Amino acid sequence: MNFNENHQRQIQPLGDMPPEEFRRYGHELIDWIADYLDNIESMPVLSNVKPGDIKNNLPQNPPAEPQPMDKVFEDIDKIILPGITHWNHPNFMAYFNSTSSGPGILAELLSASFNVNGMLWKTSPASTELEQVTLNWFRQMVGLSKNFWGIIYDTASVSSMHAIAAAREQLADYNSRLKGLAGRNDIKRLRLYASEQAHSSIDKGAITLGVGLEGIRKIPVDNEFRMIPSALKDAIEDDKKNGWLPFCVVATVGTTSTTSIDPVDEIAEICLKENIWLHVDAAHGGIAAIVPEMRHIFKGVEKADSIVINPHKWMFTPVDLSVFFTKKPKVLKQAFSLVVEYLKTSEDSVVENYMDYGIQLGRRFRSLKLWFIIRYFGVEGIAARIREHLRLGKLFSSWVDEHPSFERMAPVPFSTTCFRAHPAGTDDEASLNSLNEKLMSNVNSTGKVFLTHTKLNGKFVIRLVVSGLRTEEKHVEIAWELLKNELEKLID
Amino acid sequence: MNFNENHQRQIQPLGDMPPEEFRRYGHELIDWIADYLDNIESMPVLSNVKPGDIKNNLPQNPPAEPQPMDKVFEDIDKIILPGITHWNHPNFMAYFNSTSSGPGILAELLSASFNVNGMLWKTSPASTELEQVTLNWFRQMVGLSKNFWGIIYDTASVSSMHAIAAAREQLADYNSRLKGLAGRNDIKRLRLYASEQAHSSIDKGAITLGVGLEGIRKIPVDNEFRMIPSALKDAIEDDKKNGWLPFCVVATVGTTSTTSIDPVDEIAEICLKENIWLHVDAAHGGIAAIVPEMRHIFKGVEKADSIVINPHKWMFTPVDLSVFFTKKPKVLKQAFSLVVEYLKTSEDSVVENYMDYGIQLGRRFRSLKLWFIIRYFGVEGIAARIREHLRLGKLFSSWVDEHPSFERMAPVPFSTTCFRAHPAGTDDEASLNSLNEKLMSNVNSTGKVFLTHTKLNGKFVIRLVVSGLRTEEKHVEIAWELLKNELEKLID
Repeated sequence: MNFNENHQRQIQPLGDMPPEEFRRYGHELIDWIADYLDNIESMPVLSNVKPGDIKNNLPQNPPAEPQPMDKVFEDIDKIILPGITHWNHPNFMAYFNSTSSGPGILAELLSASFNVNGMLWKTSPASTELEQVTLNWFRQMVGLSKNFWGIIYDTASVSSMHAIAAAREQLADYNSRLKGLAGRNDIKRLRLYASEQAHSSIDKGAITLGVGLEGIRKIPVDNEFRMIPSALKDAIEDDKKNGWLPFCVVATVGTTSTTSIDPVDEIAEICLKENIWLHVDAAHGGIAAIVPEMRHIFKGVEKADSIVINPHKWMFTPVDLSVFFTKKPKVLKQAFSLVVEYLKTSEDSVVENYMDYGIQLGRRFRSLKLWFIIRYFGVEGIAARIREHLRLGKLFSSWVDEHPSFERMAPVPFSTTCFRAHPAGTDDEASLNSLNEKLMSNVNSTGKVFLTHTKLNGKFVIRLVVSGLRTEEKHVEIAWELLKNELEKLID
Repeated sequence: MNFNENHQRQIQPLGDMPPEEFRRYGHELIDWIADYLDNIESMPVLSNVKPGDIKNNLPQNPPAEPQPMDKVFEDIDKIILPGITHWNHPNFMAYFNSTSSGPGILAELLSASFNVNGMLWKTSPASTELEQVTLNWFRQMVGLSKNFWGIIYDTASVSSMHAIAAAREQLADYNSRLKGLAGRNDIKRLRLYASEQAHSSIDKGAITLGVGLEGIRKIPVDNEFRMIPSALKDAIEDDKKNGWLPFCVVATVGTTSTTSIDPVDEIAEICLKENIWLHVDAAHGGIAAIVPEMRHIFKGVEKADSIVINPHKWMFTPVDLSVFFTKKPKVLKQAFSLVVEYLKTSEDSVVENYMDYGIQLGRRFRSLKLWFIIRYFGVEGIAARIREHLRLGKLFSSWVDEHPSFERMAPVPFSTTCFRAHPAGTDDEASLNSLNEKLMSNVNSTGKVFLTHTKLNGKFVIRLVVSGLRTEEKHVEIAWELLKNELEKLID
């Protein structure tokens, strides 16, 4: 760079990137993304960089002078891409895989461009009203009644925290909004119930809200990893006798380890009788209710107080978009509404201001994603994709069942299979654990598949999740062949 | 639609939008956005739809069949656009205006396409390490020392809630993570301090965390709306005598109503002496520290425990991106880390897993936005833009000062002016309030400017904020002319 160029840069006009530049780089990026998604199978699913590799390739000080976008784009290929674990890859079968989609990406692009903050109706009426409309659509799609009112939060962790907060708010004599919880001798310790298999976000929510880990009673599960209702009932009885106040139960439809489904219907009966808030965590599994023949997973949910379902997990929606439904929005509002002078508008009495229902004041225009995705794929198109995932999940688990050196470790109510290698003659649990840990690690090291694990009754178990938009039968076959081959190498 | 078309759609292949369609619609949308931003001044800043207008234009049931994207795009123009309040408009001078930028939009597009969840280092090393690098850059840009460790959250509300949570965690003998707060006779009531002018998110954080509204003691402000340190000191003494436990102070650098700056240095001395966590809310104002001659606003911040600064407010970053710095990341981690089996990775001992530091497990790849924006504008380019905003804010306030029918209601430490009309002869406060409410409403109704209000000592005050990327001197002039003209009409 010579002095003149440098000088020219320093006197660049203020304001935004000029429109012609935005067009050029925008088109370039769209093409780059189209190629990226089209060629994703040529890349290793799991990034194979070492800790520090990315950081060490980047300057430790920010640039004083503007840099051309071309340089940034070059660095995406050179530096960023090798450090990406490709969640969109059809063989990303780890965690609860969540994939993006064309319409979802375009909606996010539009949302970033409008850049409205939907805290109030007035700060963009379209944001509030499209959220109302698309949540009404989504509610119908998963077969919930009109008794459920909805709001979009960022993540299931935050949705569930709001559920527990509402459960706490429901305890009118606690008046925790005003008085807090600490140092009071007029209230009992609070107890929340969830199964041993519930997600860690429930624990984090309870910690945040001052319930504490001791305030969570983990209810045992049956041999299919479902909460045992009679154990819940006994726990509540026991706690009441011992001076605790049972105030919230979290049932899970699709637990993280095995996708087990708690018996919501029976749990709901207990909660109704005891007047305890029932929250249903269906962050992953709830999406399957879009498939009519899967609607049974929501048996009893109508009796719950709230439920969280994440389109960003299994409905091809870029993170983040978590849907929270509750039958008691007034309680939620009572917990969180704080309308200070500078947020008052003349429409407050006739509109819904979503800021009243949560901890976050800033709200992205997320409903655009639901709108684009539901319209582009159609409800039947979405159902067809999920139905295919369910078929592939069952197919994979049937291969596991039929193979003499593998065993299935849990039922497969959705499309996630928990399994392990168990070759004839190896029955020592410690050996099996280390064998399976090694097997998973070797499979992942090929870069062709990414699987993660859990532990069930102390046993190391591999999980294979089929929920990616681009996952077809051949990808499940690739995973299966790899597992068999790598196991053979290990036991040779 | 005839049967054949219908049939054809039903058998559309599964999977994502085909690459050629993504390219076509992507290019179309990029062009649409370029035009939108280029023509934004031709649109009314504040949407003039009536409550229900958008909702009533949309179907109440989701489409069963896929719909072409063209139809969706048509509806953006027809239905969504009229319901947008244009935060990107150079005359959006309400709230703390936050505007998007070309590089920020492109980064969000890329982030939605990768769609990684950065909960763990392993789930995309580039996400974790680019966050570390860009936060290191940003820390240097605002002149904070290496003692501050950073993390990106979604909003300032959530950042501040984490600060208060860490303050609570710091009380080792409370052990609230384990024991919660309710029904214990071994702990005192908790007291948090913030000025009367602090943001409502502090109250929401305290409610959430079980501190309660009574647990917040609002400290009076001086005639420039800054917290009075001696009043803080007295309040702490008083509370200690009365059985409260002072545990957290929130000082604000740039309060929401007037952008007043609390005397952080003096407040910090009190907190150090009392061993109370000091959190600095610089969500809006902190960005100004990028301008070297404004660095004085952070006097004393080095003695604080944590600070929040929002690039999504005044650094041209699409919502959401809130930066939280703390000198005590270990306390934060202690409060929130919960590593269950299915989230364990072999790299845990050598990498940073950001999920350990917060309530949310799901984490978007937000650092791409910082990276694009800092590189595209350069630190000096960003500083130049903010410096110009500061100049324009001062210019506007000088016009107010010089005009006989207007008066300034607060100092202007940044680029926000609090003012009101005060025509000669009208001195009744109630009349002045209704005059100014009417004036603001009339100005906003023109669609040419959007201003919001606050109340200061019971007086209705109009705020004019200059922080938009596209705001130039002519836009401030437009606002000023409108205010004068509409006032003339009102007092005629």
